[in-house]
Amino acid sequence: MSEPAESETAFRFKLLHQDGAARAGVISTPRGEIRTPAFMPVGTAATVKAMQPEAVRALGADIVLSNTYHLMLRPGAERIAALGGLHRFMNWPHPILTDSGGFQVMSLAKLRKLDENGVTFQSHIDGARHVLTPERSMEIQDLLGSDIVMQFDECVRLPCAPGEAERAMRLSLRWGERSKRALAPKSGRALFGIVQGGDDKALRRESATELVSMGFDGYALGGLAVGEPQAVMLDMIETVMPFLPVDKPHYLMGVGTPDDLLQSVKRGIDMFDCVMPTRAGRHGLVFTRHGRINLRNARHADDPAPIDEKSSCAAARIYSRAYLHHLVKASEILGMILMTTINLAYYQELMAGMRAAIAEGRFEDFAAETEALWREGESLSGRASA
Amino acid sequence: MSEPAESETAFRFKLLHQDGAARAGVISTPRGEIRTPAFMPVGTAATVKAMQPEAVRALGADIVLSNTYHLMLRPGAERIAALGGLHRFMNWPHPILTDSGGFQVMSLAKLRKLDENGVTFQSHIDGARHVLTPERSMEIQDLLGSDIVMQFDECVRLPCAPGEAERAMRLSLRWGERSKRALAPKSGRALFGIVQGGDDKALRRESATELVSMGFDGYALGGLAVGEPQAVMLDMIETVMPFLPVDKPHYLMGVGTPDDLLQSVKRGIDMFDCVMPTRAGRHGLVFTRHGRINLRNARHADDPAPIDEKSSCAAARIYSRAYLHHLVKASEILGMILMTTINLAYYQELMAGMRAAIAEGRFEDFAAETEALWREGESLSGRASA
Repeated sequence: MSEPAESETAFRFKLLHQDGAARAGVISTPRGEIRTPAFMPVGTAATVKAMQPEAVRALGADIVLSNTYHLMLRPGAERIAALGGLHRFMNWPHPILTDSGGFQVMSLAKLRKLDENGVTFQSHIDGARHVLTPERSMEIQDLLGSDIVMQFDECVRLPCAPGEAERAMRLSLRWGERSKRALAPKSGRALFGIVQGGDDKALRRESATELVSMGFDGYALGGLAVGEPQAVMLDMIETVMPFLPVDKPHYLMGVGTPDDLLQSVKRGIDMFDCVMPTRAGRHGLVFTRHGRINLRNARHADDPAPIDEKSSCAAARIYSRAYLHHLVKASEILGMILMTTINLAYYQELMAGMRAAIAEGRFEDFAAETEALWREGESLSGRASA
Repeated sequence: MSEPAESETAFRFKLLHQDGAARAGVISTPRGEIRTPAFMPVGTAATVKAMQPEAVRALGADIVLSNTYHLMLRPGAERIAALGGLHRFMNWPHPILTDSGGFQVMSLAKLRKLDENGVTFQSHIDGARHVLTPERSMEIQDLLGSDIVMQFDECVRLPCAPGEAERAMRLSLRWGERSKRALAPKSGRALFGIVQGGDDKALRRESATELVSMGFDGYALGGLAVGEPQAVMLDMIETVMPFLPVDKPHYLMGVGTPDDLLQSVKRGIDMFDCVMPTRAGRHGLVFTRHGRINLRNARHADDPAPIDEKSSCAAARIYSRAYLHHLVKASEILGMILMTTINLAYYQELMAGMRAAIAEGRFEDFAAETEALWREGESLSGRASA
């Protein structure tokens, strides 16, 4: 494996175009450029599930996300560091953003105990006891060799008990400060703060304002797409956006459906990650220009049509729906590979379409056309029954 | 998908070189040539598990095997025919050999009832009742569009009760005759007979003699690698070989390890299929020039070395053993993809090595060098503990 030598390139965001609130730009890092709006495929355990890294790249990904929580448990951050870092380990020489572990500790670990210092928890893999603090999260992300490091935060599910969103938001601010102090400066490496505050506009504003006064290289919105309606999520984006610096990347964590991406870019988001295209692909659900198709449905069993004959993705053009249906029913790995490929291709095609539309000042038209195609396809294919 | 138009090319085996009993040649079919000795990756359910067909081809496969039994149950032979045949269905425009279903009915189906007419059995998938006869097996293989059709046979496990091997051998001869009568002649399509007879030399000789007198396009040895020691299998090959025509392909069904392939080619076998490289790859066992490596073993957890830095297979050169170990432990699909790739690459590399050695009259030397490398690697890596 050849890994580009790290140059002294600084981490830099350049805003190239604006069209309404939608933005197109480019993030420069020592490991390469990230065209925004960007979708980051999720490589939880140092692999984008069912995909070879060359294929992830070829489909248009400039950056992938990986997870502090999973990698600290298996195979261990110190081990990855000794093996030359995460990029070498997973054969992805391009930029990597690492989540800080806060979200996964809440959603996956057993027997959590949270206090001011951090979180003590049991591994979901073997029950072993671990402690994660802002300082340890920064150390792990440093050991991994992450290009974009996320602050350690606490994320609450929505709806949450009164006071919970505020308590977690204030704790996340203190942890943000500790994260910033703990992470040694390194040329070209970025640290992003995470705006919390649940579905409370005042809390979200306060969180954003405080983080910006500390000064981060980019700003994420965390704790969204955790159970609330899309309208609430979009409302929170609109609420926060005026308080974020225009010259820093805006990252909406863990989102979402193609429509979520379209609506969020429209409101000024630059970066996304989500397991949706990969997870759905492993379960027979594909996203296309014409909406969703559930290949598990028996009505595809005799259908010789491909997923999308005009797709830039060979898998979407070559294989019949009947064959994909067969692979899903037989739980064949090739089905997971092909449908993950089709989904990542569509997500990247959608991002590329948005970037081009923003550059050409026709984002509203692009969004309207895209939505019309989704609706048309889904009414034709009977989405309710799919 | 583009599929080459079927020309009127006949099915033809051309013997190019002999070196001792080892043979190198080429089988011509309307869908392309098959260089022999050939290893056929197994595509049981219309997919070589965990592999994209382009990759199977790129690793050197001229032909793949698929299964009457599996495809008749799911998705159904008539359905595949209506979708344009198996080649189009699975995006493999090159030759396909289909097994007749006899072996899988014995090894997989529930509640079998066998009589002169055929086998009645319950599907291992949903318990539905099916009947397979020589005539129906031929019909299914015709519907699939198979290039090399196998006669319907009965295969017994070894060791077997007295008289069982003889009874099954004679039944298989009668089924061979019925298979021949049932399959309509089609230009370029081959029908192979299957030599049975368990581990009894006299039965094997009689089976071979009778089949040859009926006249098939190729001859397979069935009912081997079903529990007997390798020495017995090789003894059966040596016993049968003098009774098979030199101008027809000799196919050893369901075999085997790299050493089985080497020893069998040495004795005049031209074709093989086996789930070993694909199944082992999905479970973390890889085959290399230096013997076997079990990536599940904890001693690989910190090993930065690749599988084989001199391999022609990128997956064997690029990824560390530590990473492959991690993927196996985490049950990641990428691990299955990479290790299946590494194994199929090695199997095809071994076949190519044998073909070149036979052509140059140095098969014995090639075999000795190959075996020495296996032994050396396995003693270095402590195979017993791997």
